[in-house]
Amino acid sequence: MPATPPARFAYLGPEGTFCEAALRTLPAARHAALTAHASVPSALDAVRHGEVDGAVVPFENSVEGSVSTTLDELATSEPLRITREILLPVRLALMARPGTTLTDIRTVGTHPHAEAQCRGWLAERLPAARVLLAASTAAAAAAVSRGEAAPYEAAIAAPLAAEWYRLCVLADDVGDNPHAVTRFVLVSRPTQLPPATGADRTTMAAFIADDHPGALLEILTEFAVRGVNLTRIESRPTGYGLGRYCFSLDCEGHIGDARVGEALSALHRICPQVRFLGSYPRADGAATELRRGTADGDFRDAALWLGRLREG
Amino acid sequence: MPATPPARFAYLGPEGTFCEAALRTLPAARHAALTAHASVPSALDAVRHGEVDGAVVPFENSVEGSVSTTLDELATSEPLRITREILLPVRLALMARPGTTLTDIRTVGTHPHAEAQCRGWLAERLPAARVLLAASTAAAAAAVSRGEAAPYEAAIAAPLAAEWYRLCVLADDVGDNPHAVTRFVLVSRPTQLPPATGADRTTMAAFIADDHPGALLEILTEFAVRGVNLTRIESRPTGYGLGRYCFSLDCEGHIGDARVGEALSALHRICPQVRFLGSYPRADGAATELRRGTADGDFRDAALWLGRLREG
Amino acid sequence: MPATPPARFAYLGPEGTFCEAALRTLPAARHAALTAHASVPSALDAVRHGEVDGAVVPFENSVEGSVSTTLDELATSEPLRITREILLPVRLALMARPGTTLTDIRTVGTHPHAEAQCRGWLAERLPAARVLLAASTAAAAAAVSRGEAAPYEAAIAAPLAAEWYRLCVLADDVGDNPHAVTRFVLVSRPTQLPPATGADRTTMAAFIADDHPGALLEILTEFAVRGVNLTRIESRPTGYGLGRYCFSLDCEGHIGDARVGEALSALHRICPQVRFLGSYPRADGAATELRRGTADGDFRDAALWLGRLREG
Amino acid sequence: MPATPPARFAYLGPEGTFCEAALRTLPAARHAALTAHASVPSALDAVRHGEVDGAVVPFENSVEGSVSTTLDELATSEPLRITREILLPVRLALMARPGTTLTDIRTVGTHPHAEAQCRGWLAERLPAARVLLAASTAAAAAAVSRGEAAPYEAAIAAPLAAEWYRLCVLADDVGDNPHAVTRFVLVSRPTQLPPATGADRTTMAAFIADDHPGALLEILTEFAVRGVNLTRIESRPTGYGLGRYCFSLDCEGHIGDARVGEALSALHRICPQVRFLGSYPRADGAATELRRGTADGDFRDAALWLGRLREG
Repeated sequence: MPATPPARFAYLGPEGTFCEAALRTLPAARHAALTAHASVPSALDAVRHGEVDGAVVPFENSVEGSVSTTLDELATSEPLRITREILLPVRLALMARPGTTLTDIRTVGTHPHAEAQCRGWLAERLPAARVLLAASTAAAAAAVSRGEAAPYEAAIAAPLAAEWYRLCVLADDVGDNPHAVTRFVLVSRPTQLPPATGADRTTMAAFIADDHPGALLEILTEFAVRGVNLTRIESRPTGYGLGRYCFSLDCEGHIGDARVGEALSALHRICPQVRFLGSYPRADGAATELRRGTADGDFRDAALWLGRLREG
Repeated sequence: MPATPPARFAYLGPEGTFCEAALRTLPAARHAALTAHASVPSALDAVRHGEVDGAVVPFENSVEGSVSTTLDELATSEPLRITREILLPVRLALMARPGTTLTDIRTVGTHPHAEAQCRGWLAERLPAARVLLAASTAAAAAAVSRGEAAPYEAAIAAPLAAEWYRLCVLADDVGDNPHAVTRFVLVSRPTQLPPATGADRTTMAAFIADDHPGALLEILTEFAVRGVNLTRIESRPTGYGLGRYCFSLDCEGHIGDARVGEALSALHRICPQVRFLGSYPRADGAATELRRGTADGDFRDAALWLGRLREG
Repeated sequence: MPATPPARFAYLGPEGTFCEAALRTLPAARHAALTAHASVPSALDAVRHGEVDGAVVPFENSVEGSVSTTLDELATSEPLRITREILLPVRLALMARPGTTLTDIRTVGTHPHAEAQCRGWLAERLPAARVLLAASTAAAAAAVSRGEAAPYEAAIAAPLAAEWYRLCVLADDVGDNPHAVTRFVLVSRPTQLPPATGADRTTMAAFIADDHPGALLEILTEFAVRGVNLTRIESRPTGYGLGRYCFSLDCEGHIGDARVGEALSALHRICPQVRFLGSYPRADGAATELRRGTADGDFRDAALWLGRLREG
Repeated sequence: MPATPPARFAYLGPEGTFCEAALRTLPAARHAALTAHASVPSALDAVRHGEVDGAVVPFENSVEGSVSTTLDELATSEPLRITREILLPVRLALMARPGTTLTDIRTVGTHPHAEAQCRGWLAERLPAARVLLAASTAAAAAAVSRGEAAPYEAAIAAPLAAEWYRLCVLADDVGDNPHAVTRFVLVSRPTQLPPATGADRTTMAAFIADDHPGALLEILTEFAVRGVNLTRIESRPTGYGLGRYCFSLDCEGHIGDARVGEALSALHRICPQVRFLGSYPRADGAATELRRGTADGDFRDAALWLGRLREG
């Protein structure tokens, strides 16, 4: 392989977020330039403008659900492609400046999602503490590090944030749900399409016509009839009134697979708009199990058979 | 057009059957050589062996249902193609040798299907007469014409049979159901494929796997999801035990239509065997109404869109 | 149990048919009075008029398909109920008067269905013989027994017919398909409903609205959604024009089962007409396998839950 | 009607939220005691503990989507019932203390959802201003009213908040989307069930089994087969790992309607858990259009028919 310039990646900052931790799990990030961005749109714009090669942003969380900004940005702003997914267990820690003890803490800063995941722990261990919301867990940690000017005595954030902001971890694993995991995606320019591996996932956004209550059933049937399993389905408002939805979908398989391609084409025919958001290897490496008659070879044989019949 | 040798057609005889009447409605039959055959397999074999250009055989009747021999021959013997359909109202007449009157008639010969369609008339007008079954209505008429050796005094057959066998019509329109109609098909060699007209029908036979109770639902869904209407569905035993079926199907549209082609290809993938039996103009000329997103242009756009996405 | 008068049964005659053989497999037929009838409608009318307790008639054959007369009589004439099914392997024999040898045979009489099942054997062993069609295999055997007046030298019929008509079996098992089996049904008055056994079958006829191409898909979905497997589906014309069908259906389970009852009720709601034709034990004794959530207990729990919610 | 004590209602506070504005649209709220609560769980707990008769909380917004806390609280905490829905157009205003002008504003406080709906206006009219997030739009307004101690010079909030906190509206209608609307629900104790009106909506939460990719298609089919339209579908994580969902659903109709009751019962049978969250009049008053065969009378007729068949 020829020498390539070091890669550049954006991520949802500030420094010390789970998002940075997710990005650092990528081999390509080891010697790369990493830039923290204040928002998901800002990180994605850096990709669009060619300032970075890719951006890692949060996509969904097993406790809090999808990250609306990411979904909506990918579905409706200038097109980009997901080229990789990263699963990161959510490990939340309570952190404060050195010398602080649990009994000193009257207010805790954290991100709303993290707050939701620590309610049980806080009610039990810091029942008197007030929780103040911050734009991110790392921002809360950064604020704590400011000393006298800090809006709260402690933050709940990723352990990485304690390193960045020189805080002490007062309690580790303060999340109520030990299975909590966040899925991040690496987003690249729209010409990127990772090759099929046999253990792939495909993400798309399908907009439905306003007056069509059976539209979701139709969409699901297009996948089911071709043996394509859906692994995520999320309804998002389109902004044009209640009941008008865009569906954000993940399915098993790669757009290069015949069954996935035919299903996507069907959506293109029946939906007012469909946006393909990428095919990429599954982080869990689970190979797609194929139903009888849905392998690429089956589609190839059927196309040859049809061609012969049509030629007479 | 260059001069062509006169066409040759086989039909299910003997002379004077409804089948001959159906064949005579075809312009191509006007100056053609017509050959009566003793059975549907014999007429179809004449096509297979190149002795004739086509054969007209009965396919289904609005009172009696499908003609099993035709369905099974087309589904399982050496392949042929339906290239045309003919709808013929069933007009049955009671006929006898000149001089015979209704009161002379103690026995009536006819085909089982015709018998079933005249039971009401016979019970009312000839309650004492016995009905003897013949291989065809025309065969019954022919037998009556033999005079002393005739096994019965009268026959119920097509008016055309009275002409052929010089019999007198004692009563016309003796069928109980004035809407009765028979559908005949013109069967040609398997290289024939009439062009799409926008008002077409496609016939096929789909064999299902033995142990699969939901197979028919799967087959119907493959058509429904692509907006293809079925106009006939008939289950036929495969001969390998009860519950093991082949489905004989007609759908709207032409194999050259994208939606029909994709549906047929899907059947090819999910069924152990599918046999295409022809696409041909509908006799009633009813144009296919297309559901949103299922026109050829929709499929073409979707394929182009998919191609661009796959190329990156 | 109190002493009961001997049962009386009708069957499709004449004596010596497969139908009689099927009836004789029933324990209740051992000491019963059995009456041969000339046609299926005649045998069923004997039940309707109270002349007999039940009638055994042919329903479907694994080679020839459904018996149209039986299906149509049950679907459209005065209501009756199937209370039992009998499976009988088709064992056809070539029989003639004593002293006849194979080389003597120039014509063979049999029923069209039997003829279809012996074509291979006849072509190989009696290639020169002509086949004449009779109203039943037993009628052909009876005709052979008439000696000089016989229309043919031999008959193909059930071995039982050779006993009845004192004929000799020249060749046994002349059917081409060793798996051939015929299903007969015992038909009783419409108040009869055998208790559920866990291995039951239910038969019905569903008429569809004329202008509704998706009607069959709807019907199948009503069964599928409740986990009820269909074991037979047959389209029958309604007599009012091509494309207007009645579907004759068998499903697993008993009308007393909650899932079957709800599916039948749904058909009653969505079809212009549905006729229930009976729930009865399967002849093969195969117990119905239930899908998760479709047992009677599941329906009972759901009804209790719904009732509590509605009461508030 | 007898005299009743004044009603008591909780709402998501602080005073001046859209939620209070929604509550005030209810006739029953006119002379009632209204209590602001700091969070949705707190407002709902007030209902559970009998402190109030009902609570009004936000449910979904046409731009931002569902309110996760409300959905999750209703789906998984101690049961309650939605008894009414309120639609409120989102009218956002920029407000500050008297004397402040647009050019004075360097920071703006608002709720994240409101921020998302004003991005365009802010970028155009206050491009240099920083946005700070607050727990609610009203909390931001309240903070502005604190004078010197205020964390920002202006707030984006409901016009009602300007009244409460004695602020001046500097710009009205600063939302980017003029169609934005928020749906609030009135939540009562679980014994409340408003009567059916013919223009009702039913809300429920259905949990699916972990390993079942086709579960959503199954759920949708249970509604579709009974002619029940879904008007909202939202997937929510269950907290036990990605891909494990609960679906929050709205359908047309009332649990007292036969078709809705049967569909809910089916969900109870096939899902590990279903929670009924209420049937109540639609705020838009749109009467449910019934598909052929799905009216209560159709279900009643079918039940009577089934009962007669089962009795024999």
